[in-house]
Formats: sequence, C-alpha cells, structure tokens
Amino acid sequence: MKLYDYYRSSASYRVRIALNLKGLTYEKCNISLADDEQNSARYSALNPSCQVPGLETELGLLGQSLAIMEYLEEVYPSPPILPESHWDKAKCREVALTVSCDIHPLNNLRVLNYLDSEFGVNQNEKMIWYHHWLNRGFHALEGLLRGHSHPFCFGSTPTMADICLIPQLYNARRFHFDVSPYPTLLAIESHCQQLDAFVKAHPDNQK
Amino acid sequence: MKLYDYYRSSASYRVRIALNLKGLTYEKCNISLADDEQNSARYSALNPSCQVPGLETELGLLGQSLAIMEYLEEVYPSPPILPESHWDKAKCREVALTVSCDIHPLNNLRVLNYLDSEFGVNQNEKMIWYHHWLNRGFHALEGLLRGHSHPFCFGSTPTMADICLIPQLYNARRFHFDVSPYPTLLAIESHCQQLDAFVKAHPDNQK
Repeated sequence: MKLYDYYRSSASYRVRIALNLKGLTYEKCNISLADDEQNSARYSALNPSCQVPGLETELGLLGQSLAIMEYLEEVYPSPPILPESHWDKAKCREVALTVSCDIHPLNNLRVLNYLDSEFGVNQNEKMIWYHHWLNRGFHALEGLLRGHSHPFCFGSTPTMADICLIPQLYNARRFHFDVSPYPTLLAIESHCQQLDAFVKAHPDNQK
Repeated sequence: MKLYDYYRSSASYRVRIALNLKGLTYEKCNISLADDEQNSARYSALNPSCQVPGLETELGLLGQSLAIMEYLEEVYPSPPILPESHWDKAKCREVALTVSCDIHPLNNLRVLNYLDSEFGVNQNEKMIWYHHWLNRGFHALEGLLRGHSHPFCFGSTPTMADICLIPQLYNARRFHFDVSPYPTLLAIESHCQQLDAFVKAHPDNQK
C-alpha cells in the first residue's frame, strides 16, 4: 500500500499510527501542503477531495482518515483498533468523530488561510479562533472519557479514539494551547507515547 | 429510544432518515438550537458535546450522527445502510465523511455565529464562506460518485452516503447555493426523495 501523506497533517498522522499498530508496511508519498501539492492536477485526479491522507490500495485510492481506519480494521482485524462490544465501539467512534468533525475541520490549514486572505483576520484573532474550538472540543472529550476504563480511551489497548486524540494534542501544543485543564486526555496521552506505533508516526520522526 | 433532535439540524436529519430506514420507532425530544438549548445545563450533562443529535439508549446517551448510524447498523443490521464489500463500505464511509468533516462543520450555526460576533463578518461574506466550502465539497462528491452504480450512491438501496448527502443538499438550497453543476448528486437525490424514510425525516415534516 502507498500512503499519500504530509508529516504535519494530523489526519495523516492518525493513519500512520493505525498502520503501525496493525504492523502493516507501506510506502510513503509526500504531498506538501505547504507547497499546495494537494491541489495539483496529478493528486486531485487521484483524490477529488484534494486532501491528505489518501491510501492507495489494489482497488484504488481511499480518502478520509476515519474511512481508511475502518477499512484497515475490516481487512486486517488483528490487532483490533475498535473495542469489542457494540456500545463501546459506538462510544469510541463518538470520541474519534468529536475530534474529526468538531475540532479538526475548523482548525486546519485551508480554513486558517481563508480567515486570513478573505476576512483579514490577524494572527492573534486566528489563535483565539483556534483555541475556542479546541477548548470546546477538549471539554467535551474530557466529559466523554472521564470515568472510562483506562489506561487508553477504551481499555487496555489503543483504539481509533486514542489514534485521533494524540495528533490533536500535538496540534494543540503547536498552536500554544494550554492543555493542562484536561488531565484525562493527558493521562491517556502519556500511555500512548510509550508505544512504538505512536512514536514512529510522530511528525518529528517522518524524515 | 429517544432522539434529542432539532428539525433543521442536518446531523439530526441524518439520524432521522437512518431510524426510518431501519423501521425503528423513537420518541423525539426537541432541543432548540435557535434558543441555545443545546448549551443548557440539563442537556450538556447528558451530552458533553452540547450538540444534536443525541440518541438515548438503555446504555446511555450517544452523540455524533455517524457513530449513531454505525451503532444502529450493528445492533439492527436489517435493512443494511452500508454496502456489502469491504471496499464499497470504505468508499461509502469516505462519502459520508466528506459531508460530515469537510462541509458541514464549517457551515453550521455555531460557526456562522462566531464569524459574525467575533470577526464582524457580514451576511454577504458569510454566504461566500458557506458557498466556498459547499463548492469544494460538492465538487469532491461529484468526483467520488460519478461512475458509481446507481440509483443510490452505492447501488440499489440507500446507505450512509445518501443519508449524509440529502440533508446537505437541503442545507445548500436553504442558503441559496446553486446545485445545478452537480448532476450526479441531483440524480441520487431524486431517487431518495421517493422514499418515505427520507420524506418523513425532512425538516418541513417535523411538526
């Protein structure tokens, strides 16, 4: 498999973790968001969404990090990245989607660029915007995860919830967001950071 | 089951369609986004994300429309709202997530309110913002769905892809977006509109 990837894209970071957890080998093809390569004619012909990640399989290209993770879970079920029971699976997806729908889309590069170029929003106002959605999202995640069985979001092994959470915490720090009011999230992160699959997927380790 | 719902919320509209397609009966509890009821102490104690929909089950409350639909699919598998093969399932989820992550989060009420109150963005500029993300997202969806087997997004019965697409088309028209450049999406919509499950879930039919 080939992963169209950008080191700092948190959606790509998720898929790198998932591939590592499943022990799958893959070739990486860098699509530089800094150079707008995701909008090139070549890449947009492959992925009409013009975003990373994209996973090239024998059957074609698949976009959307959560769709990729669900696909990997079905085709390579061991080790699992979803909990066992229907209800725990549902709550796990709820956490993953809280990151993927409620936080990340508002704070990614294309949106920050739009605020800048079209509305003349300055750097400080952009940070307030960024932190506003992070604060709401992390508050929700603390509420959803507090009281759950740990060390990971849903039990003794990492799932899609952890896989979405860790890149979002990385992004939060990159944009100088104070993560200290979220002890549940930080406790989960400390366990994830001990696993090779997470370490190898980190943006700093992509060279 | 009880659905915490708002008639115009397109994420709630998705879940209403899914419940109808599965032939499940449910009680509705209205959470008025116009009156900010989603941020009330009572509702936020139930759903820390402070958003609709929320599905109350015997096991607790579940938020996030896609997590709810996946849960319904697992617990009430017939009729299915995902295609059969791993690959078609993956591509179906990719379409659903393109709506749910790339279009809807940028254009929902809380974001439009923020642009207005914090950045002083006027009504016309908000419409340009709204249409910008719709245009990018619908262009991607046309690319993803063109050439697929119809009448529905993935074959002869509706799936999560159709369930996400139809409320987004409703929203697009509500905000005066020209949908005519998207013939594939409109052809799929014309088939969905013939089904009771979609008609009964429509915002105009929630009184």
